[in-house]
Amino acid sequence: MAIAIMCSGGDAPGMNPAIKKFVDYVYEKGEKPYFIYDGLEGLIDGSLKEASYKDVAGIIHLGGTIIRTSRSKRFFQRSFREQAYENLKKERIDSLVVLGGDGSFRAMELFYREFGINFVGIPTTIDNDIYGTNYCLGVDTALNVIRDAIDKIKDTASAFNRAFVVETMGRECGYLAAVSALTSGAEICLIPEKKFEKSSAKKKLTNEIANGRKYLLAVVAEGCEASRELKEWIERTFGFETRISVLGHIQRGGNPTVYDRMMAASFVTKAVDALLSNERIGKAIGYKEGSFEFVDIAEVAANKYQIPNDILNALEHLD
Amino acid sequence: MAIAIMCSGGDAPGMNPAIKKFVDYVYEKGEKPYFIYDGLEGLIDGSLKEASYKDVAGIIHLGGTIIRTSRSKRFFQRSFREQAYENLKKERIDSLVVLGGDGSFRAMELFYREFGINFVGIPTTIDNDIYGTNYCLGVDTALNVIRDAIDKIKDTASAFNRAFVVETMGRECGYLAAVSALTSGAEICLIPEKKFEKSSAKKKLTNEIANGRKYLLAVVAEGCEASRELKEWIERTFGFETRISVLGHIQRGGNPTVYDRMMAASFVTKAVDALLSNERIGKAIGYKEGSFEFVDIAEVAANKYQIPNDILNALEHLD
Amino acid sequence: MAIAIMCSGGDAPGMNPAIKKFVDYVYEKGEKPYFIYDGLEGLIDGSLKEASYKDVAGIIHLGGTIIRTSRSKRFFQRSFREQAYENLKKERIDSLVVLGGDGSFRAMELFYREFGINFVGIPTTIDNDIYGTNYCLGVDTALNVIRDAIDKIKDTASAFNRAFVVETMGRECGYLAAVSALTSGAEICLIPEKKFEKSSAKKKLTNEIANGRKYLLAVVAEGCEASRELKEWIERTFGFETRISVLGHIQRGGNPTVYDRMMAASFVTKAVDALLSNERIGKAIGYKEGSFEFVDIAEVAANKYQIPNDILNALEHLD
Amino acid sequence: MAIAIMCSGGDAPGMNPAIKKFVDYVYEKGEKPYFIYDGLEGLIDGSLKEASYKDVAGIIHLGGTIIRTSRSKRFFQRSFREQAYENLKKERIDSLVVLGGDGSFRAMELFYREFGINFVGIPTTIDNDIYGTNYCLGVDTALNVIRDAIDKIKDTASAFNRAFVVETMGRECGYLAAVSALTSGAEICLIPEKKFEKSSAKKKLTNEIANGRKYLLAVVAEGCEASRELKEWIERTFGFETRISVLGHIQRGGNPTVYDRMMAASFVTKAVDALLSNERIGKAIGYKEGSFEFVDIAEVAANKYQIPNDILNALEHLD
Repeated sequence: MAIAIMCSGGDAPGMNPAIKKFVDYVYEKGEKPYFIYDGLEGLIDGSLKEASYKDVAGIIHLGGTIIRTSRSKRFFQRSFREQAYENLKKERIDSLVVLGGDGSFRAMELFYREFGINFVGIPTTIDNDIYGTNYCLGVDTALNVIRDAIDKIKDTASAFNRAFVVETMGRECGYLAAVSALTSGAEICLIPEKKFEKSSAKKKLTNEIANGRKYLLAVVAEGCEASRELKEWIERTFGFETRISVLGHIQRGGNPTVYDRMMAASFVTKAVDALLSNERIGKAIGYKEGSFEFVDIAEVAANKYQIPNDILNALEHLD
Repeated sequence: MAIAIMCSGGDAPGMNPAIKKFVDYVYEKGEKPYFIYDGLEGLIDGSLKEASYKDVAGIIHLGGTIIRTSRSKRFFQRSFREQAYENLKKERIDSLVVLGGDGSFRAMELFYREFGINFVGIPTTIDNDIYGTNYCLGVDTALNVIRDAIDKIKDTASAFNRAFVVETMGRECGYLAAVSALTSGAEICLIPEKKFEKSSAKKKLTNEIANGRKYLLAVVAEGCEASRELKEWIERTFGFETRISVLGHIQRGGNPTVYDRMMAASFVTKAVDALLSNERIGKAIGYKEGSFEFVDIAEVAANKYQIPNDILNALEHLD
Repeated sequence: MAIAIMCSGGDAPGMNPAIKKFVDYVYEKGEKPYFIYDGLEGLIDGSLKEASYKDVAGIIHLGGTIIRTSRSKRFFQRSFREQAYENLKKERIDSLVVLGGDGSFRAMELFYREFGINFVGIPTTIDNDIYGTNYCLGVDTALNVIRDAIDKIKDTASAFNRAFVVETMGRECGYLAAVSALTSGAEICLIPEKKFEKSSAKKKLTNEIANGRKYLLAVVAEGCEASRELKEWIERTFGFETRISVLGHIQRGGNPTVYDRMMAASFVTKAVDALLSNERIGKAIGYKEGSFEFVDIAEVAANKYQIPNDILNALEHLD
Repeated sequence: MAIAIMCSGGDAPGMNPAIKKFVDYVYEKGEKPYFIYDGLEGLIDGSLKEASYKDVAGIIHLGGTIIRTSRSKRFFQRSFREQAYENLKKERIDSLVVLGGDGSFRAMELFYREFGINFVGIPTTIDNDIYGTNYCLGVDTALNVIRDAIDKIKDTASAFNRAFVVETMGRECGYLAAVSALTSGAEICLIPEKKFEKSSAKKKLTNEIANGRKYLLAVVAEGCEASRELKEWIERTFGFETRISVLGHIQRGGNPTVYDRMMAASFVTKAVDALLSNERIGKAIGYKEGSFEFVDIAEVAANKYQIPNDILNALEHLD
């Protein structure tokens, strides 16, 4: 029996450690591991091959993904899905591990229902915006990249008595911004999930500036689309010269942290175990309170991830 | 009411974020935060002062501890404990948050029973060797420092067709070595908790070398005291020129990771909440499966931390 | 006799090691070192104090500047310069070391001619755009910050078959962009000093893409104001989905590299030696081919820094 | 005409950027680049192949060397040198670029005289101990790795009121230790090139400790073999608990800095230009005061590298 791994949608650090663990663990179980290159596009085009130990030697510390990823419109047409199925059948592959987000999981579930190809989706995105799991692979690395960037920005902010508005990734989700604000000593945080209380922030910070505060740091989730507005508000309200720093795609790269390497191994082990159990499966894995459980794709698709309350509460004290 | 924070025993990254959170949170609760400098030695000598926001500005990203730490023999004499108590009484401090290990917790519990000074111990050590918690503050940072060191060592190992024996800290506990081996793609791992199966390792690696493996990486916990012996065994068995690298005290330093900064905030919040609840308390906090709970010091002292089974099992596949 | 140090204009990594060396070296020479805080603004407002060893303990690895910097419009008015002079006279300070750029040097030279305050300007800016020196303090650190950012961006670029346009700082000068492009394996580099040869770049890269190139990296100096145009050209010409990443103020921060720490010490030593020599001086120091020489401010002001020819020539081979 | 590149002796960061530049530049010049794998051992065994652009894609940021290196005893026997010569003749290779140290250069010069194979040696070692050049490829990266390690050690030293003796690499040469001590704010530095003045160090540091110094940092070159002795002297003289940290092989690894990437390109360009000039050559390149010049191997072999006087003088002020 053969089992394949594929990345789909946005890339995230942790994909390579997951790919390495996949190959090692599938061989350990006596089965044949396959790579599907370039995501759903490669699945349609038959870009796949049996994976070897050599393919995954020396990749555990690399960001990105050695098998690449893609977004695919063609896969929404039945004829291309048939083509994808024929590619798998030719190699006797009947199970897939998919590193991706909820869009990719929905595509795979359709494929599972149509052609009976088992799959387990491992939530993988730096945005941490997938329902049914508290953790998405890649988030810890992204948070530490942001930490490092903010440390540098604080150097120049404090040298110059300036304010900085730092914009993080996360699409509609404020998780990256919220955790970064709390762990980097920011004074202001804007996320889509929470109203920013201008008046209390103004009162609190005016007071701190009177007591000697010499610079301000604000962290804003990209989903707020509010960096420019906030910059102007800070300049108007506090008189600080204010700069915007959009951190951008550096947040997607970098050597995976130990936490992401460990999570990659745990996610992959559970996924492969489920796929080798001889039961039919087409689900995602969620991580909650220290344990892993399977979640229906319909549930993942129908719900929105909620930032934990203790994080939202802690943000209250910034305003 | 006044409440103080103190470091005791070995330092660990995460102490400074904890100290910052302590000051911010105690003020938020309307109480007075104090620093005790230089651990139990400073407690005896009265090195303490009320803490201000300014004391903790710009420290969240610093390794080490701005209030320093110590080991104290004097504290085991009743007269010095009396002196310590008088220092606290003078400032009306009746509660302590202690960042340290089980030795420090035992000393504080004695003090609690003798003088009624409440305390909560936050398990803080890179060794991750404290019973009653799955996580000690500082471990994630140390693991990432080790990761970075091993990445560098692999550069030179692979350039030269060499084997490396990397010795990690951890005292009697093999946690750092085990997780580092698993997440850095090591071929061999020695920890006190597990017998090293030479014959199966020999068989497996001889086979890999025949198939093209050009270097070897072994991670050894300092508690095994086996680096030299392992080096000689590798040279004898596989013919690789082998070097030992004792990572040493770099493992204790470095900018705290986001995970350690978050855990620092969570630990401190629980500790301060408990101390302000008006109930008498003299316990440690443990972190287990995503939640925090209080543990009796006697229990912490009487038991030995066990590395989780899934980590021990994963190590089996290295040999 | 007393001698002061001041930062002026944009901050750069290397200021703190320079400040530390200044204090140590002035004491070593038996004179009194002073700090002027907040640049020319602080000079006007009398924000100055005698510096101690303790002020500079543990700052050598910090980005930014502990004495802060500023831009000043007031200093262009004679009355404020008089006020500045009175502040210095009060403390018997007759010499200044100024870490800054050519604008700051011109201001200081006017001050020198009017009031006889000696000064030596140390070229300090990550932009490397000051005439009369081949190296400005802070450049090596900025280049390594950019290197680290581009390494991360390449992770995600190669994972996704994408092109990236990375915009670096440097104002009108293309030095940072040019060296970053050459040392990070970029395929395209745009700087103000050199025409971008679209047709040859198109030919060369079309060929490489036909031979398997899967992503493109372009580095653009901010002075070109061409990131958007280049993005569109790449998308139109090669069909790659293309993202822009403006690196922004992270380039100004970070732990100074060893090279910047060494250069800081060398620049400061020469500056202090000149100021203590009892001759009148109002110049900048330049670094050229391994040695240091003094340059007239008029010459610095009247000329534009030229990127070395070997760098410009090497860029030819990218197109 | 074909031209090959080879690494020999100890590895150093900067080898991979040099290898990439070599392939790019030789193709640019219209000639054929070759790799010799595994140093002189591979030269004897015929481990060589024509290099392609693909071989060097994505290697610029890697430590170590993708073509590996070795030390060879066999090459000192004429019969193996003959075999090596035959391997080159078969592929019509008549010139070599050699990344290595003086031992390797001497071996190559013998080979040059016996068989007429041209070569240019690029001084490559983190030890910076080669006569005829002020800079050896890899040194800047090693210095920054040491800086990072010492920053971490200072975290724990200052947390604990401890002294640390940090031992750096460098074999008989004290360059790494000297520059590291000067740029990391160490209080003591021991190198083979300079007598350590115990009495003046004792006097100076006793004074500083009386004024509040709470920890000590000493940097010792491995060539002094004095770490243990120094530790005992510090404990005896100042009463600080003292730890030794032998930095070891992490100093050989790591992502090459921008400076090493630039120097790699400059060294390789000069070397290839010389080899393609149609004149016979068997020399090393030295870097001095901003320019490159060729040096006779006999001269390199007969002399010992001297640390620049300004560095030695600056060390005086530590004691």
